[in-house]
Amino acid sequence: MLDIAIIGAGPAGLSAAITGVIRNKKVKVFGNPMTTSYIYKAECVDNYIGMPGVTGKEMMETFTNHAKEMEVEIQQAKVIEIFPMGQSYMLNVENEFIEAKTVILANGITKTAVLPGENEFLGRGVSYCATCDGPLYRGKAVVVIGDSAHAEEDANYLAEVCEQVYYVPLYKEIEHLDERIEIIRQKPKQIIGETVVAGLELAESTLEVSGVFIIKESIPNSKLLAGLETDGSAIRVNRMMETNLPGVYAAGDCTGKPFQVAKAVGEGNTAVLQAVSYLNALNRAEKNK
Amino acid sequence: MLDIAIIGAGPAGLSAAITGVIRNKKVKVFGNPMTTSYIYKAECVDNYIGMPGVTGKEMMETFTNHAKEMEVEIQQAKVIEIFPMGQSYMLNVENEFIEAKTVILANGITKTAVLPGENEFLGRGVSYCATCDGPLYRGKAVVVIGDSAHAEEDANYLAEVCEQVYYVPLYKEIEHLDERIEIIRQKPKQIIGETVVAGLELAESTLEVSGVFIIKESIPNSKLLAGLETDGSAIRVNRMMETNLPGVYAAGDCTGKPFQVAKAVGEGNTAVLQAVSYLNALNRAEKNK
Repeated sequence: MLDIAIIGAGPAGLSAAITGVIRNKKVKVFGNPMTTSYIYKAECVDNYIGMPGVTGKEMMETFTNHAKEMEVEIQQAKVIEIFPMGQSYMLNVENEFIEAKTVILANGITKTAVLPGENEFLGRGVSYCATCDGPLYRGKAVVVIGDSAHAEEDANYLAEVCEQVYYVPLYKEIEHLDERIEIIRQKPKQIIGETVVAGLELAESTLEVSGVFIIKESIPNSKLLAGLETDGSAIRVNRMMETNLPGVYAAGDCTGKPFQVAKAVGEGNTAVLQAVSYLNALNRAEKNK
Repeated sequence: MLDIAIIGAGPAGLSAAITGVIRNKKVKVFGNPMTTSYIYKAECVDNYIGMPGVTGKEMMETFTNHAKEMEVEIQQAKVIEIFPMGQSYMLNVENEFIEAKTVILANGITKTAVLPGENEFLGRGVSYCATCDGPLYRGKAVVVIGDSAHAEEDANYLAEVCEQVYYVPLYKEIEHLDERIEIIRQKPKQIIGETVVAGLELAESTLEVSGVFIIKESIPNSKLLAGLETDGSAIRVNRMMETNLPGVYAAGDCTGKPFQVAKAVGEGNTAVLQAVSYLNALNRAEKNK
């Protein structure tokens, strides 16, 4: 069992991770490849004190190397959902189940735009995880809506098991899509069906599919962890980065403005030290039983 | 008239200053020489992401150089008192009077009583931070002097890495000390050694230790600015680093725990961006007059 599961491998998540490791906790970071991070694409960051005039790429490489030097374990995988389990949390990491005593949410800005039908059909034809739900669509037709080239891997996997895969990219450059997949460059309008998904309506046509895979960089927080309180799109935290759920902390852009590296790094540090205190209190309580 | 007066030239103050300058505000930092900053004396800081394994001296030099490259003005002087003047504040800077539209308090924690030997051996066996310096004492004997139960967590952590940990409480009720730690209820007299720490002399005995960790809750100078609300020894702030006084922000150790570089840098960043918003609103209001 992990002591601390950190969701997100950006500045906040990595900052939390290094201090967690120094404090001898069993820590694991779950994140997308660093190339997908917003900051990675920044031309120049000048206001993270100590690192003048770096590109976002240099910054993320330096941060990631620092974490690796400290033996932080980073797993490139998406956390689909987090379930409260009494005194711990169970993470569904692309259908591998991993238990953690505490969770630090450092998953950046989650795009909140939800497609009409997305909430209604979630689990009944709508999925956020090809690895998890792909096998359910063996021999059927599905569509993948992807917001970055990262989603192409999910689509390629589905092409191996499904009869027909459509791909609706929400970005420009397709990088490595399997040739069996049909690319549809239209804006998705809504997911249709009665009790289960029957199709996806696009700007100029409608696809008849049994499954709609929405593969985004991040999963909406309300879907990721039920019961988590938010202020608008930001996770609600106090000055100690505690959320409303015991043992769950948040740090970085996901807690709201300002969207800055320094703020994210500082919050990651505060969040993990609060998690360490919580873990130490848990341990003491267990010993006294 | 300054747009932003920053009190303190440590990590929080310098972080605030560089972003203030980028945002085209007239900024000035007032602080002690960097050699007096207590991060300057840290033997090793490993958990400010992007700068692995630096000494406190290297860190403060890098931070200060970054600020100077950005043309941040740093005045080595002590701010004695700050007076509210309607829509601005007047600073008594060692009897020079300087007016500023906003103030960022980043003056750290002020330590009062000092043990003989504490100043001389700081960075050579004396430390204020177990998370920072603990790993340097792996397999060695150390003593922790704690003035509140908060210090017990630091001692417990040291018990995981050190051969022997003594604990000298400056308070009554021990709350949750690891059983491997030996409690010594004697008044500390002085820190002894030649070039590095060799021991701690107490009222009735002498401990042979390589490290003396002095973990105190220090009181900030709340007399600096009349009417400033505090929570115990920390300046009371909200998530935007606003104090109870309009145009006055606080960042870093003076806002409370955790006393960490990353947290200070993040808070400095948030504080100055909030000051920038306030200044912009003032300017708009003046134009509309």
